[in-house]
Amino acid sequence: MPDQESTGQGSTLITGIGELVTNDGDRDGFAAMTGAALVIAEGTVAWTGPASRAPAADTVIDAAGRAVLPGFADSHAHLVFAGERSAEFAARMAGRPYRAGGILVTVEATRAASDAVLRANLRRLAAEMLRQGTTTFECKSGYGLTVPDEARGLALAAEVTAEVTYLGAHVVPPEFAADPAGYVDLVCGPMLAACAPSARWVDVFCEDGAFGADEAAAILAAGRAAGLAARVHANQLGPGPGARVAAEAGAASADHCTFLTGADIDALVSAQVVATLLPGAEFGTRQPFPDARRLLDAGATVALATDCNPGSSFTSSMPFCVALAVREMGMTTEEAVWAATAGGARALRRTDIGRLGAGARADLILLDAPSHAYLAYRPGVPQVAAVWQAGRLVAGAVPGPRP
Amino acid sequence: MPDQESTGQGSTLITGIGELVTNDGDRDGFAAMTGAALVIAEGTVAWTGPASRAPAADTVIDAAGRAVLPGFADSHAHLVFAGERSAEFAARMAGRPYRAGGILVTVEATRAASDAVLRANLRRLAAEMLRQGTTTFECKSGYGLTVPDEARGLALAAEVTAEVTYLGAHVVPPEFAADPAGYVDLVCGPMLAACAPSARWVDVFCEDGAFGADEAAAILAAGRAAGLAARVHANQLGPGPGARVAAEAGAASADHCTFLTGADIDALVSAQVVATLLPGAEFGTRQPFPDARRLLDAGATVALATDCNPGSSFTSSMPFCVALAVREMGMTTEEAVWAATAGGARALRRTDIGRLGAGARADLILLDAPSHAYLAYRPGVPQVAAVWQAGRLVAGAVPGPRP
Repeated sequence: MPDQESTGQGSTLITGIGELVTNDGDRDGFAAMTGAALVIAEGTVAWTGPASRAPAADTVIDAAGRAVLPGFADSHAHLVFAGERSAEFAARMAGRPYRAGGILVTVEATRAASDAVLRANLRRLAAEMLRQGTTTFECKSGYGLTVPDEARGLALAAEVTAEVTYLGAHVVPPEFAADPAGYVDLVCGPMLAACAPSARWVDVFCEDGAFGADEAAAILAAGRAAGLAARVHANQLGPGPGARVAAEAGAASADHCTFLTGADIDALVSAQVVATLLPGAEFGTRQPFPDARRLLDAGATVALATDCNPGSSFTSSMPFCVALAVREMGMTTEEAVWAATAGGARALRRTDIGRLGAGARADLILLDAPSHAYLAYRPGVPQVAAVWQAGRLVAGAVPGPRP
Repeated sequence: MPDQESTGQGSTLITGIGELVTNDGDRDGFAAMTGAALVIAEGTVAWTGPASRAPAADTVIDAAGRAVLPGFADSHAHLVFAGERSAEFAARMAGRPYRAGGILVTVEATRAASDAVLRANLRRLAAEMLRQGTTTFECKSGYGLTVPDEARGLALAAEVTAEVTYLGAHVVPPEFAADPAGYVDLVCGPMLAACAPSARWVDVFCEDGAFGADEAAAILAAGRAAGLAARVHANQLGPGPGARVAAEAGAASADHCTFLTGADIDALVSAQVVATLLPGAEFGTRQPFPDARRLLDAGATVALATDCNPGSSFTSSMPFCVALAVREMGMTTEEAVWAATAGGARALRRTDIGRLGAGARADLILLDAPSHAYLAYRPGVPQVAAVWQAGRLVAGAVPGPRP
């Protein structure tokens, strides 16, 4: 434990924390302390422990019994786009099924939009996420599907996050409808060359109507050769090869995982691929929810993310995803909150976020509630009172005494 | 249409409204205008129409293409209580079924709480509702279950709303476990006499484990004799007589309606009893959702409400209920928003709220979205930007131009 000196100039003590979710216990998984305090210094967590033993600091904040959590890590979002699809949503709710081809509506609008329009929309969504407690988010391209449009999307994404994903392989664009192999060549060749400098990750939508197993494997291999680590859209709309492709490619994460066989789960567990579940997509397309319980019981690492996009899942709310995971997917409140914080960090191969132990980045949420369980116990209610990113208060405010 | 003069001193023009939900068309049901404006004067709606023809006003607000809706009317909430039941919630999510007896945990905490504690909790929840767009809410007693505790609960509720409901018949308290008939006598006699002056409504939880058909009918009749209009908790946990009792008593509303027979629906329609659906309760107890489509197709009037309470449904979010109604209950976005506004007004027999036509109370919401559909299209995302109650801005702020 550091002494008072080590908290340094500009340190902040948050004390009176009813529940401090640290995800930093002896065992891997959810961990929390009650009656706790936390010290932030130089953008990182300098100390956590019992409030009664907290060191001095330059600024003291009283949490008044509220809960403090790591900021959410949303490892799957599509935020570079123009236009909206609320009419398609309403029609789908009235009975029309979801099809991957709806993506092309957004592709058309995105190609036609100016940089300024795309940037304003992206920044509006990023700010909205931050207000809801998401302090790290991944952002994919995938609505450009030409070399310049994909490169533009990634450059814009890189302005707002370090977790930038090249998703040229979202769907085959109409101009390649007669030559899908030619589009795969473009994705693996000139488009990748133009995009790789802005990206950390390569992703592929491996699904009927999008890309098959061999195409997906080729795209991930090309991405890896260009220095990009792999993630995969897998098994969203039906059974298929996505999870297996992810495992064989050593992907960080297989995302959706709604339709998995036992062999798929074994492959994910063996290859230590995180299963990232996106319940907003099932909510928004009225599909069955993925079975998180089955994955957890098999030893898989599960993350939760929003899949925020204008077609299948236009929520940016990690609290909403936590509530759905508990109601619909067999997760406990602890498992769901771990999946939305530490799980997202795993899916992004990050060790500096998703936890609140000494040395972690000081990304944290003050809930206007006494425990993490309230995210599921009070669904839909905005309960994120204040958000710190790298030690700086970036959204909300610290409320007064809690009645 | 009034001329400019009639908007008077202190009038406010909201113009540039992308979609103005009026619920005030020629036909009964959802109605909206695009490219609209609205004038508020003296706490009421003075004018609505095309933005191009809007009269002058003292203050002008630019909605910048956003949607304006009537404030939500939440016709079913239990806000006078102490304590919380997040551990019971978490256990239930892990597999333990919901039982009405859990109410007694809250009864014990409520009886033990000071007026100040109850008032602070009630006001916190009322403010939270307002921030989420609920400009009218009903509030029940039912966690006191003694003469002084029920009377206290209603007096506190009457401090914050005109829609106060006497629910002495929530469950039989433990001290009457051996004499439930004696408790019904108390509810119909001295407790009613002490409570009626603070209340507008009488309610009864008609369900196995709570009160049977004859008891419920007797309680509603006694309430009516004391000047209280009837509403009923009906058919939440299984089939039963609740809906029929509500119809026979001429109740304004039968609430929950999760397990209805065809005959139940016919009875509600014939007696013009509103079916108030509370999807937060099904979400929070993992029960099947009520079938709104079946009710609507049979000609029933459907309302949506939160059932906000610390046991079965601790959400205060009408937007969340709208999203669930669309995803889970077969309602269109128009039907769900009508049910959350005009439907709630019907369930409270109010004609001054739930609509935005000339003469209505100026209770309205500015969404940070271009249409009402976004409440379902973007589930979980806080989109209520500003709220007016009787013409006064009471929560949020008018945002700048929308990107």
